[in-house]
Amino acid sequence: MRFLHFIQNGIRGIAVNDPADAGAGFRGFTTEDQHFPGFLDDLLRAEADLHEVQRILRGGRTIDLGNIVFLPPILRPSKIVCVGLNYADHVRETNLRAPDYPELFARFSTSLTGHEAPILRPRESTQLDFESELAFVIGRRGRRIAHANALDHVAGYSIFNDATLRDFQFRTPQWTVGKNFDSTGACGPWMVTPEDLPPGASGLAITGRLNGEVMQSSNTGMLIFDVAKLIELVSAIMTLEAGDIFITGTPGGVGLGRNPKVYMSPGDRFEVEIESIGTLANTIVED
Amino acid sequence: MRFLHFIQNGIRGIAVNDPADAGAGFRGFTTEDQHFPGFLDDLLRAEADLHEVQRILRGGRTIDLGNIVFLPPILRPSKIVCVGLNYADHVRETNLRAPDYPELFARFSTSLTGHEAPILRPRESTQLDFESELAFVIGRRGRRIAHANALDHVAGYSIFNDATLRDFQFRTPQWTVGKNFDSTGACGPWMVTPEDLPPGASGLAITGRLNGEVMQSSNTGMLIFDVAKLIELVSAIMTLEAGDIFITGTPGGVGLGRNPKVYMSPGDRFEVEIESIGTLANTIVED
Repeated sequence: MRFLHFIQNGIRGIAVNDPADAGAGFRGFTTEDQHFPGFLDDLLRAEADLHEVQRILRGGRTIDLGNIVFLPPILRPSKIVCVGLNYADHVRETNLRAPDYPELFARFSTSLTGHEAPILRPRESTQLDFESELAFVIGRRGRRIAHANALDHVAGYSIFNDATLRDFQFRTPQWTVGKNFDSTGACGPWMVTPEDLPPGASGLAITGRLNGEVMQSSNTGMLIFDVAKLIELVSAIMTLEAGDIFITGTPGGVGLGRNPKVYMSPGDRFEVEIESIGTLANTIVED
Repeated sequence: MRFLHFIQNGIRGIAVNDPADAGAGFRGFTTEDQHFPGFLDDLLRAEADLHEVQRILRGGRTIDLGNIVFLPPILRPSKIVCVGLNYADHVRETNLRAPDYPELFARFSTSLTGHEAPILRPRESTQLDFESELAFVIGRRGRRIAHANALDHVAGYSIFNDATLRDFQFRTPQWTVGKNFDSTGACGPWMVTPEDLPPGASGLAITGRLNGEVMQSSNTGMLIFDVAKLIELVSAIMTLEAGDIFITGTPGGVGLGRNPKVYMSPGDRFEVEIESIGTLANTIVED
């Protein structure tokens, strides 16, 4: 199942697709419909049965993906936990120390944007870099979750472009400001439930393309700390809640690691494709 | 005006005190009362007139502060923006570089706890340190806010103990994990509105006491980046929203900077007092 949030004619809604039923496309409801079941944020927090939500949404009308604005699959995540330096080739290109423990930072939800929505290059910087990443969404609350049960806490997977203002990232040792400009964290186009993917979404090709040219090409099987390990380690620190999002880190090939460096400019288009999940595409717009 | 959130007989509520009316104490409503106006989170997001909210709450019943559980003045902040290294004496004791730009990190709301609620020492660490801090709450949304207008965006001030697991803080260059154990960020006892304080809550004595002994003693006038400057600089990066909280950093005297180091143990009591705001007190409990 793929769940997506959208705006159509100014009204927000939620839709679902069943990949097993290739011709069916997406069907759903907007907040104005009597049978609108809620956004994914609320459904996960209420521990709704997503198969039952799917059944309800498939009674809705067809959603033309060419005629909607995509919104992130979680509108207001309770946390956005970001992992740095989680692919060996990216660690090498940054000249930073390889971590023996996850390097975590945070995004605030004001930094989010959706599929085919602009990634904004702020007037304060020209060093806007791309980072293609696998994202996952927590569906079940937990603390000190055992590795063996970790994947039971995942509601689904998505794609993220963790676009970063490099000069601000390294302005102080904490990376927070370079990762939190408004509308720089693209997430979407949808959330895919675990039943449609390999365990932990491992072994999937991940590709980042700038204006059609491949800049990043790796595989989610190369993660230093994989999805289950991240859940085990981070839940030792803090309670994970339904509606939290994790961003798992980017493989090598980012603009910072190139000679000469490659940054994104207004008009550029960046696509992140993850096998079996989809393609997240965004155009850069001057803020 | 001082607004506080509480639980009484298992029911959550909100109350207000008017410092100009010394004998009146706190009055308010719980969620079960017909006139319950909402929690401060929702009232700020709805841009409610706090004087009108005060008028409503003063029609409520007397709240006995000895008979309630205190909750943080914002229950689920939309952001918790934390500033490191913001007093010169604390910069010196950490042997870190003095920033020419705010050193920002984030807390997630799962790390919050209230006044007189336990600060939990997790089983994963014994290096639980105290950090006495001034907190402020954003009341009005804005981006790229001019310095001259910055204080218009503050709904009020509070007190924070940014308790930190030092080994986890320095386990990787990003401080996130050491700052995000559950129930380590104490906030309260209430939010004081700006009209009762000097502009930017500057010039107030701030004191941290461990089991009654003064460990930190400074003045909010010593902040390297003061409240207005933080709003100006951070709003250049991201939209500030009503319900965001800023934690402004701690003065010198933390346990890490002492020889021998002083960490908090179960049974210890730490109090942060800020002149004209109040005293935040917490007992350390083994998780």
